[in-house]
Order: sequence, then structure tokens, then C-alpha cells
Amino acid sequence: MKIRQLFDYDTWTYTYILWDKTTLEAAIIDSVLENAQRDANHLKELGVAVKYLLETHIHADHITGAGKLRNQVGGQLVVHKNSGSECADILAEEGDIFYLGGHPINVIHTPGHTNNDISYHIEGAVFTGDTLLVRDCGRTDFQLGSNQAMYASLTQKLFTLPEETLVFPAHDYKGFSQSTIGEEKQFNLRVGQGKSYEGFATIMDGLNLPNPKRIDISVPGNLKCGLID
Amino acid sequence: MKIRQLFDYDTWTYTYILWDKTTLEAAIIDSVLENAQRDANHLKELGVAVKYLLETHIHADHITGAGKLRNQVGGQLVVHKNSGSECADILAEEGDIFYLGGHPINVIHTPGHTNNDISYHIEGAVFTGDTLLVRDCGRTDFQLGSNQAMYASLTQKLFTLPEETLVFPAHDYKGFSQSTIGEEKQFNLRVGQGKSYEGFATIMDGLNLPNPKRIDISVPGNLKCGLID
Repeated sequence: MKIRQLFDYDTWTYTYILWDKTTLEAAIIDSVLENAQRDANHLKELGVAVKYLLETHIHADHITGAGKLRNQVGGQLVVHKNSGSECADILAEEGDIFYLGGHPINVIHTPGHTNNDISYHIEGAVFTGDTLLVRDCGRTDFQLGSNQAMYASLTQKLFTLPEETLVFPAHDYKGFSQSTIGEEKQFNLRVGQGKSYEGFATIMDGLNLPNPKRIDISVPGNLKCGLID
Repeated sequence: MKIRQLFDYDTWTYTYILWDKTTLEAAIIDSVLENAQRDANHLKELGVAVKYLLETHIHADHITGAGKLRNQVGGQLVVHKNSGSECADILAEEGDIFYLGGHPINVIHTPGHTNNDISYHIEGAVFTGDTLLVRDCGRTDFQLGSNQAMYASLTQKLFTLPEETLVFPAHDYKGFSQSTIGEEKQFNLRVGQGKSYEGFATIMDGLNLPNPKRIDISVPGNLKCGLID
């Protein structure tokens, strides 16, 4: 399995292209509308065939490129069944498995940032969306976010993966591109070193972050797979 | 061998940490002064011991963090012998080999962007500095840059590496993080598909880029390994 990481400078979003090097079946995770043409060109140059367009959740900070890419390069668009998506091909849930060649992509439902977060676990790597970030985690204060759900997703689901598992987040704001489950269990500032739920919730409740600038257009736009005027 | 890519948002610079997972001997390539503390913390969390601070060249667009990091975490600072560096521990040249555990790091002199560019070739990956960029190459119009040297470095040195070799550049401006030698031979916009020297030089001579904003402090600062007031 090959992994290629791409970045959107405006919204600090990581997009990923995964492909099986034998069959050249590919998936693209969390594309960004403004980069859809870049990504379509790159997929063509890589010579891969898109089988899945995987969304980790309904994003609030940017509009997905998945709908536009599906029109250009094909593939089935996957979002969690809780999302309310009006246009996905597959409404996924915990335990679903997709395949690229013989490589399984396992769906782990990791709510907390929203109620519809998926982490995609693929042979030694996990794509954690806005759930687990490098030394950090996603916010929990809108889109049916929940401190309890986030804490459980991090500590009872993601932290049970093997420690050497590579962690690929949907965002970073300090220049980190990846981590491992072992590092995050030890060094994550919000839940590392066995921090209690109470300690975690105190941090989250004190963040006082402004809403994302584009939330009012991003959420409805993403429920339409980014296929908006 | 493990590779960790880090990014500087201000100057679009990629820094790399490499380490042997058995001995935990590490190298850091092209650190940025403003991120030196981030990188020192990250090295500590990874539990690695820095043996080498590798510079791909004397940068014109940012000040290296290598001198500051050397003071904090140790290691030998490596720059090409043509650089005029006043503070490097090792003035490297073509054919030099450094080791992290049993893993060789091969020095390839790839001038063209400057007269002192090194590409570091390490078991299936090459760190190409400002010589080979994703679908692109570094500019050649200052610091003893040369179209002829760049064309030779790209086509006669880097393009002779195995096609599956991963390419990790020092910069990207479109959100790409890596490539392969095979992709660049095919799709590089300046030298791909066997483009002639004349075609390459016409592109380079027509770029008309402004000088980097920080060139007047970066070059002398980097000759002092970034150890400036």
C-alpha cells in the first residue's frame, strides 16, 4: 500500500491518496474543493483508479472536493451514516471494511468532534480525521460534538491500536505531518499519560475557540458533497 | 530507517528527521531557526540521539536552525565544502558516506541552485534540497547557480537513481510532500520526458523571480550556521 500526503495551505487540511501498487486501486481521503483539479491531475499521473472517496466527517472549516472529484474520476463516496449526507454512495458504520486490492480499510466510528467521525485503519496506519491530531485532538463544541464521546474514541478505540501504528491527521497547525499511536498515548497534551476524563474535559471546556469562518457554508455544502454553486 | 517530515509555514520549508529504529541514531535535514525549539522537543519525544545536522545547501530564504539545535541536542553539522561555511563540523563532498546505525547516507553533489547543493540518498529515498522539487526544480539565478549544472544534476545524477526512489524536497508551494524519481522523469515540468537542455534553459531564463525577501540576512546568517544575534 502506498500513501501520498497533500496539504491545503488555506485551511491547513491534509488530503491523502492511498493505492495498492499491484492493482492500482486507490482511495482519496478528505479532499478539498479548491484543490480538486490538482488532485485529479495527480491521480492521473500516479496512474491509479479511484475506487473510494473517503470522508472522515462532515467538515466545518472547508468544503469537500469529493463530489467534484467523483464527477471527474469516478469512485464511491463514503461518509458515516450519522452524517445526514444527501449524496454519498455508501453510508458507512463501525466494522465496515473496504478493500484496495487485497488491503482492508477498516471503519472505526470515532465520534466526539462530530457525531459522524470515521477513522480509517489500514495496515499499520490510521487516518484519524479531526479526532486524533498530533499531540492534540479536534474540538467538541459544535456539530453534536461531545467531550465524553471524544475521550472514549481516543482512549478506548484509537489507543487500543498497536503502538507503532502511524497516525495521519486531517489537520495540523504546527508543521507536524504524522505521529504514532505510541507517541500519542505518551505525549498527547489532552489525553496522554492516562489523563483522566475530568482533566480532559476541563481542557476542552476552556478552549473558547471562535467558530470556523466558513462553518455556515461548509456544513450544508458538505452535506451536498461539495456540489454547490 | 524512519522518516518524519515537518513543515515551516512561513517559508514553505520541509525539515526531515531520520532515525535508525534500533540504535536511535538520528539526523535532521534543513531545520529552520524559528522552529528549532519545536524540533528539539520533537527529537526528545522520539527518544533519538542526533548524530548529524545535514544541510542541503546555504539557504537564501530562511535561516537554518542547525547551529541552535547543535547547541541544544548535539551532533555534527554537515555542509558541502563549496559553501564557505564558517562553523560546520564536516565539509562534505561527493561520495562521502555517513551512517545512522547500519544505514548509509550517501552524499551526491547536485549543484545548480547554488554551487554547494547536496542531495542525501538513503535506502530508497533521496532528500533533494532545492535541486529537484515536485514537478519542478530550484531557481538558478543567484548564489553561483547555473542552468548547466542544474540540468546535469537532475538528468545525469538524480535521474539515474532507481525509479521507485522516494523524493523528499526542501520546499513545495502547491501542497505536495513527496514524489518518486520515476514520476519526475515522466512529469517534471522542466526536465521531464527527456526535455532538452535548450528547452530547460529557456524556461529557467524566463522565470524572472524576485529575490527572496530575506536573502541579505539569510546567506550570511547561514554561513554562521544560523548563530546570529
